[in-house]
Amino acid sequence: MFTLTFNNDKPLYEQLYSYVREEIEQGRIGPGEKLPSKRTLSAHLKISVVTVETAYALLASEGYIYSAPGSGYYAERIPGRMRGQTTSRPILRERQSEREYSIDFSTNRADTACFPFSVWAKLSREILSSGGEELLNTCSGKGVYALRQAIGDYLRSFRGLDVYPEQIVVGAGSEYLTGLLIQLLGRDKIYGVEDPGYVKTQRVFSANCPGVRPIAVDGSGARLDSLVAQGIQVAHITPSHHFPLGTVMPAARRHEILSWARGSEDRYIIEDDYDSDFRLYGRPMPTLLSLDCSGKVLYLNTFTKSLAPSMRIGYMVIPPELLEGFEKRLGFYACTVPVFEQLILAEFLKRGYFERHISRMRKLYASRRSHFVKALENSPLSQVLEVKGSNVGTHLLLSSKNGRSEKELVELAAREGVRVYGLSEYYSFGENRDRGCIIVGYSGMSAQEISRGVSALERAWL
Amino acid sequence: MFTLTFNNDKPLYEQLYSYVREEIEQGRIGPGEKLPSKRTLSAHLKISVVTVETAYALLASEGYIYSAPGSGYYAERIPGRMRGQTTSRPILRERQSEREYSIDFSTNRADTACFPFSVWAKLSREILSSGGEELLNTCSGKGVYALRQAIGDYLRSFRGLDVYPEQIVVGAGSEYLTGLLIQLLGRDKIYGVEDPGYVKTQRVFSANCPGVRPIAVDGSGARLDSLVAQGIQVAHITPSHHFPLGTVMPAARRHEILSWARGSEDRYIIEDDYDSDFRLYGRPMPTLLSLDCSGKVLYLNTFTKSLAPSMRIGYMVIPPELLEGFEKRLGFYACTVPVFEQLILAEFLKRGYFERHISRMRKLYASRRSHFVKALENSPLSQVLEVKGSNVGTHLLLSSKNGRSEKELVELAAREGVRVYGLSEYYSFGENRDRGCIIVGYSGMSAQEISRGVSALERAWL
Repeated sequence: MFTLTFNNDKPLYEQLYSYVREEIEQGRIGPGEKLPSKRTLSAHLKISVVTVETAYALLASEGYIYSAPGSGYYAERIPGRMRGQTTSRPILRERQSEREYSIDFSTNRADTACFPFSVWAKLSREILSSGGEELLNTCSGKGVYALRQAIGDYLRSFRGLDVYPEQIVVGAGSEYLTGLLIQLLGRDKIYGVEDPGYVKTQRVFSANCPGVRPIAVDGSGARLDSLVAQGIQVAHITPSHHFPLGTVMPAARRHEILSWARGSEDRYIIEDDYDSDFRLYGRPMPTLLSLDCSGKVLYLNTFTKSLAPSMRIGYMVIPPELLEGFEKRLGFYACTVPVFEQLILAEFLKRGYFERHISRMRKLYASRRSHFVKALENSPLSQVLEVKGSNVGTHLLLSSKNGRSEKELVELAAREGVRVYGLSEYYSFGENRDRGCIIVGYSGMSAQEISRGVSALERAWL
Repeated sequence: MFTLTFNNDKPLYEQLYSYVREEIEQGRIGPGEKLPSKRTLSAHLKISVVTVETAYALLASEGYIYSAPGSGYYAERIPGRMRGQTTSRPILRERQSEREYSIDFSTNRADTACFPFSVWAKLSREILSSGGEELLNTCSGKGVYALRQAIGDYLRSFRGLDVYPEQIVVGAGSEYLTGLLIQLLGRDKIYGVEDPGYVKTQRVFSANCPGVRPIAVDGSGARLDSLVAQGIQVAHITPSHHFPLGTVMPAARRHEILSWARGSEDRYIIEDDYDSDFRLYGRPMPTLLSLDCSGKVLYLNTFTKSLAPSMRIGYMVIPPELLEGFEKRLGFYACTVPVFEQLILAEFLKRGYFERHISRMRKLYASRRSHFVKALENSPLSQVLEVKGSNVGTHLLLSSKNGRSEKELVELAAREGVRVYGLSEYYSFGENRDRGCIIVGYSGMSAQEISRGVSALERAWL
């Protein structure tokens, strides 16, 4: 007969249920073994018959025991290894940076001091206090309509793009949206990504489809002959600002690449306009999307760079020709961005806060850039390094003039506690040739930090 | 010579730049054509030479013109179709429900009145006002550690699961996480999904991999013989509560399926525990994950059902054996959930709000369910319909007793303004057999609405 001591933690029926389950799972009650009758057990354990009944009913409903009419309850056969044999679980520690740096010229940091917290908090309060049904129920798979409208208006005013909210799909960042684009255009296509380029882009494509090839890049951006030679069908390119080389694709190349896309029905261009908001001087170039009139360009952009890396909101513009296929095959997907965030961002755009934020950041980055460039020019470093990079974006290239290798430069800087990044890290295909070129981002650094960084680099490299 | 009238909208250099760009793009200035010299143009337009210089420099930097040393500026050749020829764009209207319903027995609605708005708003204020760097910079690709810790604690207390935060991956909903799981286990695997089942699950798998096959379901849930017959390698199943049949998988079947998974190295189980929080009576069954000791179970759950459909936060638990592969191949992905939302949810869990919310919702749903069941039992509808469904979840099944087809039942209800769903809609494979069975969800409906719905169904079906 069962021996168990009850306590006050849980209802009695639950304690009995757990005890019997454990006995069966551990094999101490064998398959087919008869259980004590409800009445007997109730008397034995000094609990009510109802308690035993409840526990038995629960065990039966979960398949641990079965009842034979008029005869009583029997233990089920539980095949396989038993629960009690659980082994201890080895755990992988999450990777930490092996080294501590006091200065990090990362290209991927935001200046947290500049985020418009108070405005964001105000809008967030407004939207939460409206507390409507809209806030809780799912939106369209493409995103909240009001946000798509606001993005459309923004693109019209600031990028000269004439797109309808129906063409806009909001999603949890460029990486997610890229995965969606691949599902739209087909995994079997040959995709091309710029080499060098944003390494994550190459990784997203490689994780999602078998045919990913490099697109060579020259002083005008993605090379047409490379697209042709590699047999690429869908080209992911960054014409407004190549990362990390900083190239702005000139008009002639833009038109050439559009012509290439029109040359075959299954060719498409994914135009990644990821940091076009940060063109620091002059006017932005017209996008490929605005030049296209054959439905060949899928446009991709994100608020991650312009607002905060923690905010996973991106969007893409789908040509009208592909919308029906999108709805039919991918329209079932729920939008991946919380409705709450979408509503805040919609207001942030509509009321002009985004525009003001961008313009403030642009000025800030321009002043940091010129501070950085001046510091480098006035430093003896200018004898061993050439500063390169266009007027877009938030990083510079430093090219060695005295034959120092990238590896050496990175290692010497690390010894002074400064983290810099070698250009070769941005090449994903072919041999990893050392180009003696260093990438330094400054978006997350104050002028003072930049100065400290330059001094540390002097100690490291001179 | 150029003729343009300046206005005060924009800097003069920008107006000149736009004018010349347009002339070149429209072909009014042909390729190779010489532009007026800076001095001539400055005199002609009565603007400063610096203004002309700035505009020309911008045009040159963007590849519209080039300078021949000592000779002046010339227009570039811009190949392909011109911008001016843009055709009007046809737009696809977004699909709207064709019909208006006054009552919708959807299985996918939340009761917005019950969402803990004030708590959520309070936590959101707290976190925004802390305004730290954590809020703005990216978190680990697996999600904010504090949230994963809180989820781990919750799983330990309420699901008896012993998992480490390192095993937990937070993502923008189950659909997104399923895509990630497929990348982890490989697209080339044969995946099985329950049929009938949640149709979106089948669609996510079909959109992501070629080999998707049905798993037949009986009174104990997913059938083992079906897994074997279909040659399935990875089985997506819902043992805690099958949707839409409501089956709870008994212990014997659980152990059988775990044995099946152990039978071959490339077999895995994806355990989707999507609404286990809403088991209305009794204790939840132990999960497959808790019974597994061979690293064969990947556990998937979401807050979408338990908090709000608009909140795209799900998570999965990866067995330690697969963690290294995950880090290596998919660790580069940024987490798809905004850090802000993650921090709020972490506090919501840690301070016990989630537990209280769930317990309130469970009571509410239980009372609605009994109200619904009683209304049906006391209605003459009980002569033509049998009410089915276990004690889990937030919907019921109504099975026709007089041979009425599903199609008829759905159509008759629609005429009375009531939306109900045929069971056959949840079958994705094989022929679409009419089973004379209707699914009615009640999670988003008050008792009053349910009563009105039952009356309308009486008018429709009697």
